[in-house]
Amino acid sequence: MAKTNPGRFFEDYSVGQILTHAVPRTVSGGERALYHALYPARHALYSSDAFASASGLPASPIDDLAAFHVVFGKTVPDVSLNAVANLGYAEGRWLLPVYPGDTLRSESEVIGLKQNSNGKTGVVYVRTRGLNQRDEVVMEYVRWVMVRKNNLDAPAPETVVPDLTKVVPAEQLVIPDGLDFSNYNFDLAGEPHRWGDYEIGETIDHVDGVTIEEAEHMIATRLWQNTAKVHFDLTFRPDGRLIYGGHVISMARALSFNGLANAQMIVGLNGGAHANPCFAGTTVKAWTEVLDKADTPAPGVGAIRLRLVATKGGEPFELKDENGKYKPDVLLDLDYWALMPQ
Amino acid sequence: MAKTNPGRFFEDYSVGQILTHAVPRTVSGGERALYHALYPARHALYSSDAFASASGLPASPIDDLAAFHVVFGKTVPDVSLNAVANLGYAEGRWLLPVYPGDTLRSESEVIGLKQNSNGKTGVVYVRTRGLNQRDEVVMEYVRWVMVRKNNLDAPAPETVVPDLTKVVPAEQLVIPDGLDFSNYNFDLAGEPHRWGDYEIGETIDHVDGVTIEEAEHMIATRLWQNTAKVHFDLTFRPDGRLIYGGHVISMARALSFNGLANAQMIVGLNGGAHANPCFAGTTVKAWTEVLDKADTPAPGVGAIRLRLVATKGGEPFELKDENGKYKPDVLLDLDYWALMPQ
Amino acid sequence: MAKTNPGRFFEDYSVGQILTHAVPRTVSGGERALYHALYPARHALYSSDAFASASGLPASPIDDLAAFHVVFGKTVPDVSLNAVANLGYAEGRWLLPVYPGDTLRSESEVIGLKQNSNGKTGVVYVRTRGLNQRDEVVMEYVRWVMVRKNNLDAPAPETVVPDLTKVVPAEQLVIPDGLDFSNYNFDLAGEPHRWGDYEIGETIDHVDGVTIEEAEHMIATRLWQNTAKVHFDLTFRPDGRLIYGGHVISMARALSFNGLANAQMIVGLNGGAHANPCFAGTTVKAWTEVLDKADTPAPGVGAIRLRLVATKGGEPFELKDENGKYKPDVLLDLDYWALMPQ
Repeated sequence: MAKTNPGRFFEDYSVGQILTHAVPRTVSGGERALYHALYPARHALYSSDAFASASGLPASPIDDLAAFHVVFGKTVPDVSLNAVANLGYAEGRWLLPVYPGDTLRSESEVIGLKQNSNGKTGVVYVRTRGLNQRDEVVMEYVRWVMVRKNNLDAPAPETVVPDLTKVVPAEQLVIPDGLDFSNYNFDLAGEPHRWGDYEIGETIDHVDGVTIEEAEHMIATRLWQNTAKVHFDLTFRPDGRLIYGGHVISMARALSFNGLANAQMIVGLNGGAHANPCFAGTTVKAWTEVLDKADTPAPGVGAIRLRLVATKGGEPFELKDENGKYKPDVLLDLDYWALMPQ
Repeated sequence: MAKTNPGRFFEDYSVGQILTHAVPRTVSGGERALYHALYPARHALYSSDAFASASGLPASPIDDLAAFHVVFGKTVPDVSLNAVANLGYAEGRWLLPVYPGDTLRSESEVIGLKQNSNGKTGVVYVRTRGLNQRDEVVMEYVRWVMVRKNNLDAPAPETVVPDLTKVVPAEQLVIPDGLDFSNYNFDLAGEPHRWGDYEIGETIDHVDGVTIEEAEHMIATRLWQNTAKVHFDLTFRPDGRLIYGGHVISMARALSFNGLANAQMIVGLNGGAHANPCFAGTTVKAWTEVLDKADTPAPGVGAIRLRLVATKGGEPFELKDENGKYKPDVLLDLDYWALMPQ
Repeated sequence: MAKTNPGRFFEDYSVGQILTHAVPRTVSGGERALYHALYPARHALYSSDAFASASGLPASPIDDLAAFHVVFGKTVPDVSLNAVANLGYAEGRWLLPVYPGDTLRSESEVIGLKQNSNGKTGVVYVRTRGLNQRDEVVMEYVRWVMVRKNNLDAPAPETVVPDLTKVVPAEQLVIPDGLDFSNYNFDLAGEPHRWGDYEIGETIDHVDGVTIEEAEHMIATRLWQNTAKVHFDLTFRPDGRLIYGGHVISMARALSFNGLANAQMIVGLNGGAHANPCFAGTTVKAWTEVLDKADTPAPGVGAIRLRLVATKGGEPFELKDENGKYKPDVLLDLDYWALMPQ
């Protein structure tokens, strides 16, 4: 019996299948320190126990996207080892903050399958849940990927395309228990702009840029125990090690501090596209468009829906060409909900 | 209203102004592990709880320079985003050890202003304090930087140049409560040389060298939440990403272990100059000159004043040319007080 | 008196000598996070408190090889600063798991000396012990290195070559107190293969590869406080910074997860050779041969003896040429015992 994991191929999935992903992970201050060393992350709620405590939380949680990466990384051996492309995200919600000492694991349910007309690949839809050591769901999201068939003679499965909401409705966002921005300290948070200062349609150029090195993206990707060889093995890809898409997400989100320092917590992921591949040597920049705003029941807390775009140069605020295709400089187009002080 | 931070310009400062710096930071074992992974730091008091405990401290503190970097990093967006040059340090004192779990924040007072004769820049003097979650001052230092004017028509402020002591007097150094080197274990510390073995005027070539990589200095600088773009954005500076001066300080201090393993704690910063810029690929070496010695009231604890020089090659012990200018191979000239076993 | 450490030369050693190595080290979640960021380490017992707890341990220990590196790193200034070659390992045993909060120190006894016929070098054998803050031995191993003489006129010592066992007998392996794999969760561990599924003589190609960067191996080597300048100073070695052999060991062991996910704990080190030097830019791959199997008294726990080979390319399963010399692509040949669920 072959001992190594060849990954699942398209014909290995069936709708309703539950995938228990391997290698649970206990996170600590080490993961937080590394996250802040790898990205220019500065949101105060994820940096300071005192700030988090003044906002009604028991301590400063692990960064929202770090929790996402831990949950996501576990799915790679079962979902995307033979993936040709990561096609999209939807219906993502952060349900519980993750604290140092928590142990995370992931499981996914296959919720859709659609073989492509070429007969060589198909699209697999999974809903992934991250759970802590108390079996509480800390986050969930839907992701779909294009996966190769191994046995081209395997019959096409019945096509099931899940009906996914385009945007998580504001009223379904989960606000952490106790969160209260009534006494929010804008000086310590870094910017004076509150929820009311942002207008729908407003765009923000986050100005700063970071040139990415090979060592950095590999250190980050390993930390999330994502071991897809495209990210690590130069002999495997003649064009260079492909940077994990989540590295670009975290880099862009951290860069967006400059202009969105008070968009403290990510609570919803409406959609996302990795528009072009990213390689070491790229200087990543970011811009944001305000898509929507909503009230929340938590004291002083507003929700804001943002489009976060990462680029490798070019002008800000240019996303697609006349044919609706992403411009070549665009790396990421992410649609998320964050919580801000009102 | 523009949402991004343009930084303060010379005309935005006034003497007496208090700057509350953003993004408090809780430190943990993660910060310590990273500090020791980024620099060849080996001073036993900062490496071992058992050693620190045998020296009268409750646990091993976060490295003195790591605490400095955390405090310093917070000042960058308010003090040096538009700085042309970091001109000097003075009157630096470490007042309380920082332990894992502590949350640090920084505030600065503008204590001096002097517009340059060209009318385009000016020198800003700030006294910065780092505070913990109990509002205790853990360290303080004066720093002055040359900052650009944005509005060249803004009137020159009244010139105020603070009267700074050249050297922190030994009797003003603060020894951590309980520190006791009476039972100091020289075997575990790594060298037999005690305070009495060093003579004023003595010079030490620390022998070892480290060639710096881009990924390392960026990881370090982000960890301190110092986001000045000169350190990160290759497209911003055609000559390469400038390495944060503090990275060179920590590298040189760590290299000085070889010959100064018992200069355990830095407690005073008398002055410092970043003599030449440093870029990735540089091999940093270091040498030290003993400038002064003093007794302290703590049992078995002596103070030693050291000049620490970082170079990028060349001969040790060569600092300045005949015109009093730093030689081109000199990166750093730092004057500090440390505590040693007697 | 010269203050810097020149290291010991061959004539400085005598059989029976005890070397107390410097700089004890407290480990935390920071060291674990860094270990997992530097290597694609995924063994569940070292990743999850919950998994470790379900296996009868109080918490997830620091990775077995991380503990080894901490213990080993301390010996470098006393044993291998003037070493020409690291010749071998034997009789290595992990005796107690190391947990976050533990403080490690090392001591070695010189157990053998043999001057080479050229009169310029000699072989030094040391037995090293790692101890925790309770003075319990957490691991021990024998290592021998070829060391230069400084004074060529120093008389040759009496030759003492210790009688070392080729393989640690299975009954001498120490199983951590309480370890119990009766309720082992193979889904969470990542692979279904149990101890009974592996046959003596079986070989496994671990498939994955990692291309190593300078920043990564230096960050790792510093973390273990191994400051041998060959690893850090590009001006010291014209052919490049030599990668610490332990970095290759950890990389190969982590890669072996793919096929040996259930070889959870390393408990014995029978031997090891660094067959060829490794430099940045190398893509490390790994393969394993099953050498032996043995039962243990712990419930559900079997021992498996494995040959782990790291390569820089070439075909798997090729080790030596017709003259018994390692092939040029072989980096490491390691012989160890691990514990697996039965």
